[in-house]
Amino acid sequence: MKVTVAGCGITNFGELWNRSLYDLAEEATYAAIKDAKIKPKQIDAVYVGNMLAGNLGGQNHLGPTITSLLNLNCPAYSIESACASGGMATNLAYEALISGRYQNVLVLGVEKMTDFETGQVTLGLMGAASEEERKAGLTFVGLYALLANVHMQKFKTTRKQLSSVAVKNHSNGAKNPIAQYQNIITLEKAMESQEIASPLNLFDCSPISDGAAAVVLSRKPDTANEVTIVASSVATDHVALGKRKSLTELLATKIAAQNAYKQAKISAKDIDVAEVHDCFTIAEIMAIEDLNFCKKGEGGRFTQSQATSLGGKIPVNTSGGLKACGHPVGATGVKQIIEITQQLRGKAQKRQLKNPKIGLTHNVGGSGATAAVHILQI
Amino acid sequence: MKVTVAGCGITNFGELWNRSLYDLAEEATYAAIKDAKIKPKQIDAVYVGNMLAGNLGGQNHLGPTITSLLNLNCPAYSIESACASGGMATNLAYEALISGRYQNVLVLGVEKMTDFETGQVTLGLMGAASEEERKAGLTFVGLYALLANVHMQKFKTTRKQLSSVAVKNHSNGAKNPIAQYQNIITLEKAMESQEIASPLNLFDCSPISDGAAAVVLSRKPDTANEVTIVASSVATDHVALGKRKSLTELLATKIAAQNAYKQAKISAKDIDVAEVHDCFTIAEIMAIEDLNFCKKGEGGRFTQSQATSLGGKIPVNTSGGLKACGHPVGATGVKQIIEITQQLRGKAQKRQLKNPKIGLTHNVGGSGATAAVHILQI
Repeated sequence: MKVTVAGCGITNFGELWNRSLYDLAEEATYAAIKDAKIKPKQIDAVYVGNMLAGNLGGQNHLGPTITSLLNLNCPAYSIESACASGGMATNLAYEALISGRYQNVLVLGVEKMTDFETGQVTLGLMGAASEEERKAGLTFVGLYALLANVHMQKFKTTRKQLSSVAVKNHSNGAKNPIAQYQNIITLEKAMESQEIASPLNLFDCSPISDGAAAVVLSRKPDTANEVTIVASSVATDHVALGKRKSLTELLATKIAAQNAYKQAKISAKDIDVAEVHDCFTIAEIMAIEDLNFCKKGEGGRFTQSQATSLGGKIPVNTSGGLKACGHPVGATGVKQIIEITQQLRGKAQKRQLKNPKIGLTHNVGGSGATAAVHILQI
Repeated sequence: MKVTVAGCGITNFGELWNRSLYDLAEEATYAAIKDAKIKPKQIDAVYVGNMLAGNLGGQNHLGPTITSLLNLNCPAYSIESACASGGMATNLAYEALISGRYQNVLVLGVEKMTDFETGQVTLGLMGAASEEERKAGLTFVGLYALLANVHMQKFKTTRKQLSSVAVKNHSNGAKNPIAQYQNIITLEKAMESQEIASPLNLFDCSPISDGAAAVVLSRKPDTANEVTIVASSVATDHVALGKRKSLTELLATKIAAQNAYKQAKISAKDIDVAEVHDCFTIAEIMAIEDLNFCKKGEGGRFTQSQATSLGGKIPVNTSGGLKACGHPVGATGVKQIIEITQQLRGKAQKRQLKNPKIGLTHNVGGSGATAAVHILQI
């Protein structure tokens, strides 16, 4: 038996001022169930990834909100792991299926972040960081700016290399009909945009977004001709940057990736396509290093060489990534699974790669305290 | 192999104005690990049950906050299911162990509710209800008052019977050194206390509390002489009362209980002791009916007859329950596991029952949209 991605459903990502959390959840849920060609009553359990519905919308208890919608009495869990909530929900769902407990489960990632005061959202997001960092007045872009400064100093990573991540991801987002930003940007525009937290500028940052993504995962016979999850691995590290052993890598990513490669019995060179957690451009550069797509310190140059572009050696963030597709935090990890599934199914439209067979997703919580890595294969 | 409760750790419950969420989490965590006689590095995964740390304290991402404390890089999940968060975290931990994935896992339930404005806490708690209920201005005591009115009308449940739940639970709480309220109360005092939402008065309501409870669950050989979890079952129902089939029962409780009895291959009459979710007195009356300790509609009379008192046929809430022991919402489900474990271990001090062999815990989210039932045996 194996665990397959039997159905995918996703809403537009963006500033969806006329859509509620419930609207978005409903659209993605029904689309995934329809795509899986099953009936709602065939769902055995529900796993919801969400970070901010309680803080911002006053709505906790999202699990039974979804079973209620589907008129089910099955188990329903809501998983909160900051920006990795979707990846962690997928991991728990995968583990339940692989243990033989269920036949079909729904994983929903959803987040409603616009229509709230910016300060409230910024503070809400800082819930992913440590208390000391929050009380010191740090913001998430501030935390990643610290990481970027260390990387630039140690490995000579350049302003241009950071911006080349944004240019690539906007180029991919322009080919993705659900992306928040479907406009291409020039390297000059990216490099010269407004500074947010030095060295990071506006185009180094993923946006505030609304959106939902859902998948039906199913236990199928080994002969099933569907996209299969061949590895699901998660790891953690210290929440506070000050307690980490190194600031040039995310240890949680490295551990999760090593375990995932081992589970799938492959190495990084076997990966044909990847969705990685580019909440900031520096995060993508560190991710492709920590995932072993290139050597530590080479991420900037690797990106600039177009190795991670659509026609490159290992295309990264074909969806547009968090940067251009958008980052409704709880939905992101599930969106990554959907993008890789569509690539492996050959259904990625204008951004379709030539015959990819193995894909990877990489979802990070906070500044790297949580990482979830999945490997998918067809 | 079986899943045992290898270690228990719990803080005082109450208005702990000089303790932070982190303090409480740390105390319970280390106490559970010590009791299990293992080292922190032997923990393979962490499951945290919490509802309000994000809403009230600005702290999300609690999973890696705990692995960070323990200097671990293992998987860490934060589960939010309103007041059933602790029970749902226990369920996921149990499932992971029974699947063979891990050897030892830590389950932590924690909540910090005092030191915040009452209105903020009330609104936060209403995150467990439906959007319509919240927008209609309902509070949790209001929701349970609706249920109480239906029960009183249909089954002739009396004011005195409601109060007899409170009197019993205060009597038990007076024997529990960690309980928030260790004072006995008279039936007159309970019956005549201030009305909160008719027919519920002050002594029908569980309090706002701080506290943490942690257990180490371990996979052990069948020969291990430890308290064993023999059933773990969860179910859901519509979040909004208006969508439920019946208002005199919690369907989620009934389904979870039926499945748990089936898993454990026992029936309700085999239960020697139970911790049930008495967020309001009416909730305990409905729970003992839905769990089949007595017939539907008989819960009030059953309680008044002292059948659920310490010397009764089936003692319920020997800890003092949510009413007297306190209700730090995320911690409650784990506290219930600890109370039953202590009873089965014969370590429940002044409230120890004579040689109980099988115990049950029942944890509810919101007004009954989630229910988690565990059966423990020695």
